[in-house]
Amino acid sequence: MEKPILVFQTDFTYKEGAVSAMYGVVKSVDRSLEIFTGSHEIPHFDAWSASYRLWQTVRFWPKGTIFVSVVDPGVGTDRRAAAVKTKDGYIIITPDNGSLTHIVKFHGIEEVRMIDYANRRPTSEGSAVFDGRDLFGYNAARLAAGQISFEELGPEYPAEEIVMIPMPKAHSEEGMVSGYFEIVDPNFGNMWSNILAEDFEHAGFEYGDELVLKVEHEGKTVLEKAMPYCKAFGDVKKGDPLLYTNELLHVSAALSEGSMLEEYKLGFGPDWKVEIRRK
Amino acid sequence: MEKPILVFQTDFTYKEGAVSAMYGVVKSVDRSLEIFTGSHEIPHFDAWSASYRLWQTVRFWPKGTIFVSVVDPGVGTDRRAAAVKTKDGYIIITPDNGSLTHIVKFHGIEEVRMIDYANRRPTSEGSAVFDGRDLFGYNAARLAAGQISFEELGPEYPAEEIVMIPMPKAHSEEGMVSGYFEIVDPNFGNMWSNILAEDFEHAGFEYGDELVLKVEHEGKTVLEKAMPYCKAFGDVKKGDPLLYTNELLHVSAALSEGSMLEEYKLGFGPDWKVEIRRK
Amino acid sequence: MEKPILVFQTDFTYKEGAVSAMYGVVKSVDRSLEIFTGSHEIPHFDAWSASYRLWQTVRFWPKGTIFVSVVDPGVGTDRRAAAVKTKDGYIIITPDNGSLTHIVKFHGIEEVRMIDYANRRPTSEGSAVFDGRDLFGYNAARLAAGQISFEELGPEYPAEEIVMIPMPKAHSEEGMVSGYFEIVDPNFGNMWSNILAEDFEHAGFEYGDELVLKVEHEGKTVLEKAMPYCKAFGDVKKGDPLLYTNELLHVSAALSEGSMLEEYKLGFGPDWKVEIRRK
Repeated sequence: MEKPILVFQTDFTYKEGAVSAMYGVVKSVDRSLEIFTGSHEIPHFDAWSASYRLWQTVRFWPKGTIFVSVVDPGVGTDRRAAAVKTKDGYIIITPDNGSLTHIVKFHGIEEVRMIDYANRRPTSEGSAVFDGRDLFGYNAARLAAGQISFEELGPEYPAEEIVMIPMPKAHSEEGMVSGYFEIVDPNFGNMWSNILAEDFEHAGFEYGDELVLKVEHEGKTVLEKAMPYCKAFGDVKKGDPLLYTNELLHVSAALSEGSMLEEYKLGFGPDWKVEIRRK
Repeated sequence: MEKPILVFQTDFTYKEGAVSAMYGVVKSVDRSLEIFTGSHEIPHFDAWSASYRLWQTVRFWPKGTIFVSVVDPGVGTDRRAAAVKTKDGYIIITPDNGSLTHIVKFHGIEEVRMIDYANRRPTSEGSAVFDGRDLFGYNAARLAAGQISFEELGPEYPAEEIVMIPMPKAHSEEGMVSGYFEIVDPNFGNMWSNILAEDFEHAGFEYGDELVLKVEHEGKTVLEKAMPYCKAFGDVKKGDPLLYTNELLHVSAALSEGSMLEEYKLGFGPDWKVEIRRK
Repeated sequence: MEKPILVFQTDFTYKEGAVSAMYGVVKSVDRSLEIFTGSHEIPHFDAWSASYRLWQTVRFWPKGTIFVSVVDPGVGTDRRAAAVKTKDGYIIITPDNGSLTHIVKFHGIEEVRMIDYANRRPTSEGSAVFDGRDLFGYNAARLAAGQISFEELGPEYPAEEIVMIPMPKAHSEEGMVSGYFEIVDPNFGNMWSNILAEDFEHAGFEYGDELVLKVEHEGKTVLEKAMPYCKAFGDVKKGDPLLYTNELLHVSAALSEGSMLEEYKLGFGPDWKVEIRRK
């Protein structure tokens, strides 16, 4: 049987040797394993972003793929090291620090185990700060290689104990939806809300409608602007704002060939409230 | 027969999950496909840079390699999605938005087809903004896997209709050459002109000659400086300027162990005119 | 027999096409070769960092792995192009410009050869500025593919002639250790000293001890601060400083979920002196 692919996401960057050491450990466990980089540019210490990026990417990989997510400010403390089987057949290896929030909510948990530190890489006793290399990467590799079973990773614990970050839902009614910016696309500067395309349908909004986007932060209105709901960035002039349905079917706001994030100095999180009404 | 390698270049960066989702789709089409990252740091929306980077890299890969280039501000509009067979045996999958300029000019087109949106990834109907994942990456994978033929991608169209960005030629005469900065090496800050090593020969310039580089932008002289024409950066003192022949045999300007780009705040494009004379 | 893995580290970044061209050359030599990116973000022209990152990563890969390190400001000059067999069974291909310092010191040299420019990629005569593609990458690929033997790369030379960068040792006595910041983790902003965990033992320091870190630069004290010696970042409050043993068993300084590098504008090198005493 083919061995599963390993996909890694961390906040390590490639600026120093951490990723290379981690991947080297995987190939030293089993030369035949296939490794992919999901991203090593998750914002530092940001379990929410780690969780979001897992949700954004896991489903597109073949069933059975093993994801290693290491955003781990609590490394060396008593936070749990988790190994999760999702209901739809993926495996996630990660500190249990909120990084599993979306996986719990949208994939569902078949089984979760606490990785036992007895399974740590044997030659790594002297330092407690690199579980990415010594615990998560190492055991993901052994699991993929068939050198350890999922059960042997450590004891099962109730899925209800997985650390969850709150995820407020969007609200929609005829002519209005409200929610918040859940995350940004830090590359293009597009703002991704928690409002679903179906919330827009429920509000009666359609492509071509002229809407008004209002953004509140810390109780102040930081942006209030009319813009159309479009299918494509190119449906408005370069530099103009638009609302659109992103590739995860969430309503998002952007400047065509520009960065709404930078232009309006926006951010993400529950305190970046969004309200969209008909003009 | 061995399946072709897939090489991707985009302006997505690794800051969020787009690349991972795209690669996951490829591996879900066919687990055995081999993927390489050409670059995910093409400047945003810059089809010229995409075109240049294709030219800079394609020839070094094995014949038959499939390149997927996604710099695509027009995604979701009626710009064509192109699949190209070059005269020398490579395949390029890209929006037809100027990204093929160098390929047309220097590789030559054997056949170009418009990828039919009927070939879009079946489960991606709800969003029109991620053709990298749903159209280009997906169909490149199917093509590499032998699940679709080149002909089945969509209808052929005349190569003459491919969108071309103008590429002015350099001029050379005894003792003088002129041209422009075609692109930069944004990493080392070296300035790559459209002047060929053979233009330098035609002008009678040889390694060791003292020359004067003049750069004009928006009608103003922004740099005028004597510097030698050298074989290697180390032929001048650290920090000193030089002209050299870059790895694509274009005449380029640099500071030894420094960044000419940043030091003189230069740029690239037809309005960054270059003139080089004997001192 | 399985062909060795190739691991690349350079200061090229992925901002332009150099890495792609270099990897393409490898795959053109032998389609079956497996390539990993160690890092393409080594600081520009910094052979010390290249040397450190080799030391940090090589040991974690399978024996026999071939490392290609290209930080090469002297490309095209008469600096030697080296191929090294380490005493513990790795191969390093690199300009001999200090990049081998840690390998010589900590792995030991079995054999070193000067790569002959007659072995340069045949079609690369016109430019002398890209040995990463035309000499180092190309010959590493041929070596991994079994198309050239280690001996055929070029003539042997004495290991004593390898260019070494000075590496001052740390000093320890009861209640005090001194050394310098050898390198930084530029991602998390942690400061890695040349002081070993065993130097700390020798000084009588233990986890939980309150110590004082003093940093001197250019003869001035730039930081003097009490902080505990901890096992994990999470053992102090967010933003608080700590000393810890890093994953290479060197004593390091950090801010918990912060960047000591940026907060105190520190640097690395022999002129960033460190002294640690009991409070």
